[in-house]
Amino acid sequence: MSKSQLDYSHDPSHESYDLIVRNDAPFNAEPTPPDLVKHYITPEKYFFCRNHGPIPVLDENEHTVEIKGIGCKEVKRLSLKEIKDYEKVSVMMVMECAGNRRDGLHRVKHTKGVIWGPCALGNAVYSGCRLKDVLESLGVTSKLDNFSKLHVAFESVEQCEEDRCYGSSIPLSKALDEFGDMNYKPLTRDHGYPIRVVVPGYIGARSVKFLKSITVQDQESSSFFQQRDYKILPESINTEEQANAYWTRLPAIGEYNVQSYVCIPADGVHNGSQPSEQVQGYALSGGGRFIQRVDVSGDDGKTWVTAQLYQPAAGGNSVYVWGWCLWTATVETKRNVRIVSRAVDSAGNIQQEYPIWNYRGVMNNSWRTVESNRLEQSNI
Amino acid sequence: MSKSQLDYSHDPSHESYDLIVRNDAPFNAEPTPPDLVKHYITPEKYFFCRNHGPIPVLDENEHTVEIKGIGCKEVKRLSLKEIKDYEKVSVMMVMECAGNRRDGLHRVKHTKGVIWGPCALGNAVYSGCRLKDVLESLGVTSKLDNFSKLHVAFESVEQCEEDRCYGSSIPLSKALDEFGDMNYKPLTRDHGYPIRVVVPGYIGARSVKFLKSITVQDQESSSFFQQRDYKILPESINTEEQANAYWTRLPAIGEYNVQSYVCIPADGVHNGSQPSEQVQGYALSGGGRFIQRVDVSGDDGKTWVTAQLYQPAAGGNSVYVWGWCLWTATVETKRNVRIVSRAVDSAGNIQQEYPIWNYRGVMNNSWRTVESNRLEQSNI
Repeated sequence: MSKSQLDYSHDPSHESYDLIVRNDAPFNAEPTPPDLVKHYITPEKYFFCRNHGPIPVLDENEHTVEIKGIGCKEVKRLSLKEIKDYEKVSVMMVMECAGNRRDGLHRVKHTKGVIWGPCALGNAVYSGCRLKDVLESLGVTSKLDNFSKLHVAFESVEQCEEDRCYGSSIPLSKALDEFGDMNYKPLTRDHGYPIRVVVPGYIGARSVKFLKSITVQDQESSSFFQQRDYKILPESINTEEQANAYWTRLPAIGEYNVQSYVCIPADGVHNGSQPSEQVQGYALSGGGRFIQRVDVSGDDGKTWVTAQLYQPAAGGNSVYVWGWCLWTATVETKRNVRIVSRAVDSAGNIQQEYPIWNYRGVMNNSWRTVESNRLEQSNI
Repeated sequence: MSKSQLDYSHDPSHESYDLIVRNDAPFNAEPTPPDLVKHYITPEKYFFCRNHGPIPVLDENEHTVEIKGIGCKEVKRLSLKEIKDYEKVSVMMVMECAGNRRDGLHRVKHTKGVIWGPCALGNAVYSGCRLKDVLESLGVTSKLDNFSKLHVAFESVEQCEEDRCYGSSIPLSKALDEFGDMNYKPLTRDHGYPIRVVVPGYIGARSVKFLKSITVQDQESSSFFQQRDYKILPESINTEEQANAYWTRLPAIGEYNVQSYVCIPADGVHNGSQPSEQVQGYALSGGGRFIQRVDVSGDDGKTWVTAQLYQPAAGGNSVYVWGWCLWTATVETKRNVRIVSRAVDSAGNIQQEYPIWNYRGVMNNSWRTVESNRLEQSNI
């Protein structure tokens, strides 16, 4: 759909939010770093908004979701009331955009996409029914032929420039995983009202908002957003043409990577008169992996101190943790030297030191931030 | 058990192996880098051996495994014949020691443990029954109270200096995961005859050999090897005393991290007359995450080329991949400059640049190798 056909006049008001707007239409906005880490559960006021088109005008009493495909004994159209009849469960999880911290890659070289700072993520408790329960009630189980190669594709009501609607998919095995969770929740319009998917441990792009249909199929979603968008291109791919020839050779991103960031002080630089500073930030990792350690340095990575972690879900013997970790540390600082953090997840993955540029500017998790005077505008 | 009480006189002969012996008693040995990548499925001749004590003398017709604990309707002692009555399945997976590439950390500063080079891993097809099936036949299911906090502890017949026997545990949710696999196989004595656990995607330390008992319990194994050994200590912990005060604050390692290494040329340095070189190596990641890209550099990380990957299990739409990735690349080289590789896994995790030292020298996956003239002997 062309840009001129998209009507943004029915978008909700965002006056009550305290967000930095990266793009008005579609509405893309994130909080400041200090605001982000004020709460362990991020209030909507500070919750980043990510859209690919106008926010649909939907009525929860009218809206239905079509569910169909391999293993489904029928094509089922469920009302929201029927969906709410399934057992309601809750999951606390961090929702992170694959483009979080794209600015760090954009400083290296031009990237395609909204130029997000470090706050395109938030931690929330989502409540709703399990996709697993809905699919199983229609006959979809792990006993299906070629089960491990099946996918669940989601389509949204959301219109966009790139495709006829927003869409995405996840592996069926992720959808049926009884050791994770996956829930629906009636939400504000900015976050997918009246129904969205949430996929713990996966990039936000897979948590499709304004859900219209669910299809079990033998390949990934054919959507632009699954096939030609959220993928990590090699450094050598610099242009749209080169990318077009390369997309099919790459896997779509599912789980996000290990990540952390200094949020307080806001710009990461201590300019006060004290030689030491109380530093705060966030850390997370994908796939349910929790954070086992965050190191913080006030001298450009020469020496590090171990941060205190606040990550209640990881207490005791928990295996999967979907929420984030907030941390604090006191570091010796030097004037005008950026304070940096690096996280280690439960699988021993560590953030890389320098940004490794990719054209789509996704999955940036380097602990060094390369500065640049020239931060060009996004092309989206 | 003290060192003098351990009798190594019944260890099998290792004459048919082509391995570099890191320690005779207990027997710890690994292949050379070029030998390691000769085969996609590693033959036993080139398969690393890792022991903590003498290799037990066991008879498959006599040996039994005791299974008990939370959810088990009885304490069950199964003969190997009974275990073989369960459905037999196969899984191809890489077995990697958490201490693989410890030498890279030991060059930075003294570490505790066998000083492994980069070949303490191998890729194998293991066949046997699923632990899931055995546990479920005894009544253990995901419906147990506090399921997500339960563990399965393994004890081995293997005696060792550190504890009364080798032991370890994994989360019950990992053991019952129907989307992974977990298998037993009669093996050579070096690899756990007559029965061992194999845990795909986890460090080798959890794949307990010479299996004696399985216990479902509400805490991790109390074994030395679960509690005070395979953990990533912060850089500030330098001594056994400091470590002893710190162990309980850290999680035990389960999944291994993203990893790759240049195996051909053997020492990573091209000294031939040609300006370009055909390079080969391996790559892998934990938890079923596959390798999506390997970059190779012949100029100390200034420029990189993308390697060709051989990773058949990752073809098509596979979600979990337990086998490794062998790769080849042609790079422009400079004399005496080390050729390096860095892998990106399916979750976008990338190898760190510089080694981050830890006292136990585990989980080293830096792509730079710091050279040192002084490589002291291990203290084990």
